[in-house]
Amino acid sequence: MHIASSFQQNDATQLQEVIRQYPFASLITHSESGIEVNHIPFFLDNSTGECVLQGHIAKANPLWKNVKDSAEVLLVFHGPNCYISPNYYPTKKQHGRAVPTWNYIAVHVKGTLLIRFDDQFKLDMLNNLTVQHEQNQATPWSINDAPEQYIERMLTAIVGLEIHITSITGQWKVSQNQPEVNKQGVIDGLSKAQTSDALKIAALVKMHVAEI
Amino acid sequence: MHIASSFQQNDATQLQEVIRQYPFASLITHSESGIEVNHIPFFLDNSTGECVLQGHIAKANPLWKNVKDSAEVLLVFHGPNCYISPNYYPTKKQHGRAVPTWNYIAVHVKGTLLIRFDDQFKLDMLNNLTVQHEQNQATPWSINDAPEQYIERMLTAIVGLEIHITSITGQWKVSQNQPEVNKQGVIDGLSKAQTSDALKIAALVKMHVAEI
Repeated sequence: MHIASSFQQNDATQLQEVIRQYPFASLITHSESGIEVNHIPFFLDNSTGECVLQGHIAKANPLWKNVKDSAEVLLVFHGPNCYISPNYYPTKKQHGRAVPTWNYIAVHVKGTLLIRFDDQFKLDMLNNLTVQHEQNQATPWSINDAPEQYIERMLTAIVGLEIHITSITGQWKVSQNQPEVNKQGVIDGLSKAQTSDALKIAALVKMHVAEI
Repeated sequence: MHIASSFQQNDATQLQEVIRQYPFASLITHSESGIEVNHIPFFLDNSTGECVLQGHIAKANPLWKNVKDSAEVLLVFHGPNCYISPNYYPTKKQHGRAVPTWNYIAVHVKGTLLIRFDDQFKLDMLNNLTVQHEQNQATPWSINDAPEQYIERMLTAIVGLEIHITSITGQWKVSQNQPEVNKQGVIDGLSKAQTSDALKIAALVKMHVAEI
């Protein structure tokens, strides 16, 4: 991903926050069978000091047979995105010099992939994912709610993925290259649009107004 | 992408509809400098009978120098996605045999990439993108609203991308493998969640209830 310097995000806390808020990643692998993309939710574990992503695929997915052990992989975590109309820029009314663009947040993670077959890893990974995603449920479901034999059978149907992160980069394209008056125009324009992504991008543009 | 047969989408109209509704794609290229992902909005042109994607990158983005002419590329168009709690399934209350999953829509496009430097292609492509994305504006902006010299200068700062599509596949993972009572439970559960993606996935699950 080409990132203009004004859009580059290097803050580890913000990068990790996007991975947690938008955990459904595109896992991109390269093997003799070509480039493959699988869409998988990942749990970011940094409890040991090292940043590790945990996930799983169905055993029926040939990915675990196609990639070599410790293969280099690329993951994309997709934040919000939306179209930015030149109509949002007050300066357009003055001189007309404005073109459309697209605002978005994307986090690219590089790492080495380990395929994990052991039940302990699989159980820990499933527990981590479950706790993360059930936290908003009125009565959070837990793996222990299911019959033990059923879970044992389910464990044999999946293969664990453990990705040791070697680099994280982020593209925060949220109108930083616009004058203040246009940033405010983008916030106003997107707030009227009222789609979920537009409102999220508006909030991110606002953060960059406040920073200055 | 591994797709279980029950989740495979082969309907060209629905696949193209996702490309139009979620035009902000991940363009995945492979060259001597490795695998690269760029996030770019594309216009789907099938006015000539052939399916072609049109987009552009900044000239400062080295992608156009790195990829060979007519390189094979992969694009991912990302529909909505959301977590599915076992709590949504009424059958869970009966026998407990339920695990979480993730519902989502993804469209994978393969094609050959042509790098286009000619102004006529660039202008047509920008017009197509503009008309598509300005249609919801009260007063749609048009390229002609900007000073001619300014647009001429902007054209020199971008490189056109033209992708001739060779295959389109879709993953529609929207609870088709669940009994009817659980599909209704997912619709009810997601409707309460009230996030934009949850509501979109609920509508898609509903379509698959109606189909049966």
